[in-house]
Amino acid sequence: MSNLKSWLRSINRYSGWSVALLVWLCLSSCSGAPIALTQDDPPPRNVILIIGDGMDDNQITIARNYLVGARGKLVLDFLTHRSAVQVLTVSEENPEQPVYVADSANSATAMATGRVTSRGRIATTAKNDKDILTIIELASMNGLKTGIVTSASLTDATPASFVAHVNHRGCQGPNEMLGSPAFGGAVSNCRADFKANGGAGSIAEQIADSSVDILLGGGMKYFQQPVEGNHSAAETVLSLAENNGFYVITDKTALQKNPHNNKVLGLFSSSTLPVRLVGKHGRKAELVGRDQNGDVRLPAPFSCETNPKHRNVPSLVQMTEFSLDHLSREGDLGFLLIIESASIDKESHERRTCGHIGETQQLNEALEAALKFSETHPETLIMVTADHGQSAQLIPQQSMFLQVDASVHSPGYMARIKTQEGGIMGVNYATNNFARMGEHTGVQVPFYASGPGVDNLDTLIFQTEIFSIIANFFGFDPSI
Amino acid sequence: MSNLKSWLRSINRYSGWSVALLVWLCLSSCSGAPIALTQDDPPPRNVILIIGDGMDDNQITIARNYLVGARGKLVLDFLTHRSAVQVLTVSEENPEQPVYVADSANSATAMATGRVTSRGRIATTAKNDKDILTIIELASMNGLKTGIVTSASLTDATPASFVAHVNHRGCQGPNEMLGSPAFGGAVSNCRADFKANGGAGSIAEQIADSSVDILLGGGMKYFQQPVEGNHSAAETVLSLAENNGFYVITDKTALQKNPHNNKVLGLFSSSTLPVRLVGKHGRKAELVGRDQNGDVRLPAPFSCETNPKHRNVPSLVQMTEFSLDHLSREGDLGFLLIIESASIDKESHERRTCGHIGETQQLNEALEAALKFSETHPETLIMVTADHGQSAQLIPQQSMFLQVDASVHSPGYMARIKTQEGGIMGVNYATNNFARMGEHTGVQVPFYASGPGVDNLDTLIFQTEIFSIIANFFGFDPSI
Repeated sequence: MSNLKSWLRSINRYSGWSVALLVWLCLSSCSGAPIALTQDDPPPRNVILIIGDGMDDNQITIARNYLVGARGKLVLDFLTHRSAVQVLTVSEENPEQPVYVADSANSATAMATGRVTSRGRIATTAKNDKDILTIIELASMNGLKTGIVTSASLTDATPASFVAHVNHRGCQGPNEMLGSPAFGGAVSNCRADFKANGGAGSIAEQIADSSVDILLGGGMKYFQQPVEGNHSAAETVLSLAENNGFYVITDKTALQKNPHNNKVLGLFSSSTLPVRLVGKHGRKAELVGRDQNGDVRLPAPFSCETNPKHRNVPSLVQMTEFSLDHLSREGDLGFLLIIESASIDKESHERRTCGHIGETQQLNEALEAALKFSETHPETLIMVTADHGQSAQLIPQQSMFLQVDASVHSPGYMARIKTQEGGIMGVNYATNNFARMGEHTGVQVPFYASGPGVDNLDTLIFQTEIFSIIANFFGFDPSI
Repeated sequence: MSNLKSWLRSINRYSGWSVALLVWLCLSSCSGAPIALTQDDPPPRNVILIIGDGMDDNQITIARNYLVGARGKLVLDFLTHRSAVQVLTVSEENPEQPVYVADSANSATAMATGRVTSRGRIATTAKNDKDILTIIELASMNGLKTGIVTSASLTDATPASFVAHVNHRGCQGPNEMLGSPAFGGAVSNCRADFKANGGAGSIAEQIADSSVDILLGGGMKYFQQPVEGNHSAAETVLSLAENNGFYVITDKTALQKNPHNNKVLGLFSSSTLPVRLVGKHGRKAELVGRDQNGDVRLPAPFSCETNPKHRNVPSLVQMTEFSLDHLSREGDLGFLLIIESASIDKESHERRTCGHIGETQQLNEALEAALKFSETHPETLIMVTADHGQSAQLIPQQSMFLQVDASVHSPGYMARIKTQEGGIMGVNYATNNFARMGEHTGVQVPFYASGPGVDNLDTLIFQTEIFSIIANFFGFDPSI
């Protein structure tokens, strides 16, 4: 149920202290690991939060070994601070009950709102379905510019949780509001969020109605739908966005020019953007087989190559550079930019090793652009984290027990990847036996930071504290 | 092949610069992530390196959720610095060739010597089998006291790599020198290391011959063997140790008194020490089954309980406290203490979830004692790390895809653990299908530090740099 939007519109009539009070209420309930700024630090101004969906420590190691070799360093290895993030989830039926594995909806909600919720929920509370103010909304209310960049649909769970409020991640467009066959979590409808019922509509409609300054990603199919209750196709979600001041771009060449200062909605693909790397001959992880003699037949090693379809869409770094330029124009007060490399998770679900390696590469390129920006804008806090763990494990490319028992192999899906430094890397996907998708894990995830005051951050951060860190950095606090 | 021991004995005749030169040679080849001490820091004096064998991020999260709840913090979560450690391994046949998953022998060798070697090797180089000076030997040569504490046999790969040099981890006692049926790596003999062949003998004999001040753990069965070439049982490895000045203790009550300043060899079990926690009714992870209707039958949830056998042996923290007292007596110049919680790995290999949770608890207790010591000895550097990843993954206790396909489950071994906060945690072991043991992983592993100068450490550390960090902290450097 969404009633926050209209409240947000009304609050603009009130003075700043009501916003401050609201933040104080949240901070007091969701704790915080404050950035400790000193007099020597530049005044806080910009935050760039980069999310590698599913990018746990296995993912990073697998990408490092392939992309720069086991003795090399990725861009994120050069950031100055590292913590672990404990991901928190609760049961929908009983929000007092811990659940130990998250999905991208509840984990992005934790980062976006500072509140723990149940799987599948987009910035709403478990069970009683209350909307929760997001850090993007807060930043906007405080006069900062805001942006969201993703290689998924803009309506996908991670970006959605920063800008929309709905009881299920599946409700991406008006058509999906009646229920969608999404995997994971409850496959529910979102009728309570119909505008006709006093709600804010589907995720796409909420994005179109939003005040975010720049939104770049995929998901055109959700924006091409007629808005709720309008089956003539005369008014689509896209036209709703245009009427709300968005300049819509759909071609990557549009990112090369920077037309004007309007809000920008970039939709470069029907749904998820095509990924950077694919396995040679379309190879991915396979079930280990046996030959006619009954001997174990491990999958033949393969290498990765560029996906030709990726060339038709902008890379994550191209979208990042465009956004950084757009959000830091003369007279701007500062910005909050969320960047998601979404298909680390999606490719890992599908057991496509080259796919998730390439998307970790894309994240590193976007990070490099962010770091370059911060060289001339030292008042910028950069954070890189993952939302939850994924199934991929780096295992021996042949079992360490082969000499004891020649029939030892992975019971799940396995890939053997030829690395660019001449090794062979075994990658295992065995969280479940489901042919369509592997399972998330509940492992604590990496967190890297660079910028003013980051050395003071705790070694263990609860995922909700990412909200507090940003709010704190910007001084969204009644005591300031 | 071991020829370092005799050289070490002879080098004591030379002046300090030869030791310094030796360290410089290594530092120049194995790089370093130096501790940055300032004038405000206390002078460096003690290093405590705590190794959780197999304690990767999944292990820590699983232990946290069980021991203190998902919103709690373990002792290690309070340390002030965190990095990731990239584990490095090479092929025995071609040491230029990277291998992406380590065993405890080569990974402990990396930490102990600063050099990358092949699986199964104890402080010797891959292929050409040269002995490599260890940080414990270096500390001893520089007049510092040294100690090794483990819940495994003292002859097990991790402790052995700090004090012995032999081509295979299986060569733990004189009897095993002819070859042993150890899992993993090459099952080789160590004839070249026979004392009769100019070598230093088995790992147990090298420990007995060593100048380490305090050695506490298990492995009595290797010390009860007659020494090499003596089949009369008149001279055992234990008597060799006694003749070398070791005061031998075998009962945990001996840790309560502190008899004298002799070197101490504590052997509290025939091999590995009994672990802290076991599954109720002996439960561990099980293969997921089907009932008579063909429906998936997940393992019933179970809880953990104290292992009665654990009460007969000292806990890791008891051995730690005794060692800290012994190594920091009046007039001592400082010490290097290695503490290993060994059975995080061993229990995870056996898919005993409660087992590895309890051993992570033991590590946290030992760390707490170390931190308490450092309160009155601020010149102490404390580091906590793992040697390599393990198979356990925290997965949903019921598949996230159950609504799509009710037959989805782990293809490997799975446990469902009742946590103390009232949740159910799914733990998956599916790196292989081997009934006897799961497989290591090659994931980057956690590294925590506390003490003078640690904030300067890199966010990514190569495992060999742990040697350099210690050498650097103590000033084992020609420029000092």
